[in-house]
Amino acid sequence: MKFQEKLLFIQKKNNSLLCVGLDSDRGKIPRHIRARPHPQFEFNKAIIDATAPFVCAYKPNTAFYEAEGSSGIHQLKLTTDYIKEAYPEIPIILDAKRGDIGSTNLGYIKFAFEYLKADAITLHWYVGKEGLKPFLELEEKGLFIYCRSSNAGAHEFQDLIVSGKHLYEIIAEHVSKDWNYNRNCGLIFGATYPDELEVVRRVVGEMPLLIPGIGAQGGDVKKTVKAGVDKNGFNAIINSSRGIIFAGSGEDFAKIGASEAKKLQMRINTYRR
Amino acid sequence: MKFQEKLLFIQKKNNSLLCVGLDSDRGKIPRHIRARPHPQFEFNKAIIDATAPFVCAYKPNTAFYEAEGSSGIHQLKLTTDYIKEAYPEIPIILDAKRGDIGSTNLGYIKFAFEYLKADAITLHWYVGKEGLKPFLELEEKGLFIYCRSSNAGAHEFQDLIVSGKHLYEIIAEHVSKDWNYNRNCGLIFGATYPDELEVVRRVVGEMPLLIPGIGAQGGDVKKTVKAGVDKNGFNAIINSSRGIIFAGSGEDFAKIGASEAKKLQMRINTYRR
Repeated sequence: MKFQEKLLFIQKKNNSLLCVGLDSDRGKIPRHIRARPHPQFEFNKAIIDATAPFVCAYKPNTAFYEAEGSSGIHQLKLTTDYIKEAYPEIPIILDAKRGDIGSTNLGYIKFAFEYLKADAITLHWYVGKEGLKPFLELEEKGLFIYCRSSNAGAHEFQDLIVSGKHLYEIIAEHVSKDWNYNRNCGLIFGATYPDELEVVRRVVGEMPLLIPGIGAQGGDVKKTVKAGVDKNGFNAIINSSRGIIFAGSGEDFAKIGASEAKKLQMRINTYRR
Repeated sequence: MKFQEKLLFIQKKNNSLLCVGLDSDRGKIPRHIRARPHPQFEFNKAIIDATAPFVCAYKPNTAFYEAEGSSGIHQLKLTTDYIKEAYPEIPIILDAKRGDIGSTNLGYIKFAFEYLKADAITLHWYVGKEGLKPFLELEEKGLFIYCRSSNAGAHEFQDLIVSGKHLYEIIAEHVSKDWNYNRNCGLIFGATYPDELEVVRRVVGEMPLLIPGIGAQGGDVKKTVKAGVDKNGFNAIINSSRGIIFAGSGEDFAKIGASEAKKLQMRINTYRR
């Protein structure tokens, strides 16, 4: 099944637009787990088992695993292997924000799709369509291009004016109108910019939008959902990381995380058209 | 010693602007090494031992190590540990092209500078100064911002016009005039665009420029050196990867690589002012 079909299937089956970000910073993992040999994996496994009924995707950010070196990468693989084995219907979006040229991208592709068996990856767009061709040719995978970041300083470059439009709009146009010949493209768009999100949803039609930035980063759930979903109420992937995975810090962290996930899933659904 | 001082010191001591790119794709490593337990590390060690007198930096690109999973990351660490131990004067530029926001960047910083003990890293700029602040605060390290890629399709976004200038010029201005308050910034600029390189060298003064794209990618050495060096003939870091590390494929690969490195070092020096 192609990524976009897989996404729509699970969004319907679980009635959820919620993505749980597995930003499993070792230093924030509950103490009783932290002492074990594979703390990031064991933490993730508990979170995944508890939240699986409420999500449409998992999104591990590679940075938190790279921080632990080869051991972290091994634990990331244990995590993605576990999702593939126990919850094969739930897509894995590898949040890697990679973007280089030519043969270098083949290395990233091997990492994301052969080694980790992810379903989708996040990418920087600056090298252009020709530079990212090895990714764009992957018909079965999902590619989320970094269109708008959720940070306060996003405007520095993203609001530059090019031919009367903002740079982020230009990116959305290139990706949706020219890069998406395999229908495998999506965009990352920060929830902290709901007005801009509304503009971009109009530009891209039904293309999947990966939307980080609600919760800890301050994005408004109602505005985000209303601006982010497609005309049928799908194809927004609304990510929460810290607000779910680190909601609890004791023995019951997974149960507390699941309760937060369920609450957010339902809250998101309230605002879908 | 700060990165920029370290760079200038070795450029003078070795009389070299040459950076060897350790793009050690496992599939291209000579057969007699490929069968060993840590082929990427053993290959790198031989290349490093043979080329160290002729270089001003080593630049491993993470993609080729990530491709081999946790084992590749382990071999990348063996490589950087070896450089630190045997050739501590030669800076390591981790070619990672990372760029995310907030706490995520702390993970990348831990990977690059604590785990691998790199001296510098390559970054995407799209999240802006505020987003990259955790990097910009690292006074001792070097940060190479991706200003111009060396691929044929670089123009798609990089030549967009913003307020009468190309986007790549705007990036060079922001980085050199606003981000560089710790004098730790540099730019990546593809050798395949020597005219644009000349423009950017004028914008950034003596800022270090990391210049990939000569050799296999077609960049002209003479034009690149003339356009890329600062007014004293320093602060260009001219990278060659495949043209050196994969010049030979037999038992004598390191000797052949060293011979290519020495030739290129001398050719580059011919064109310095």
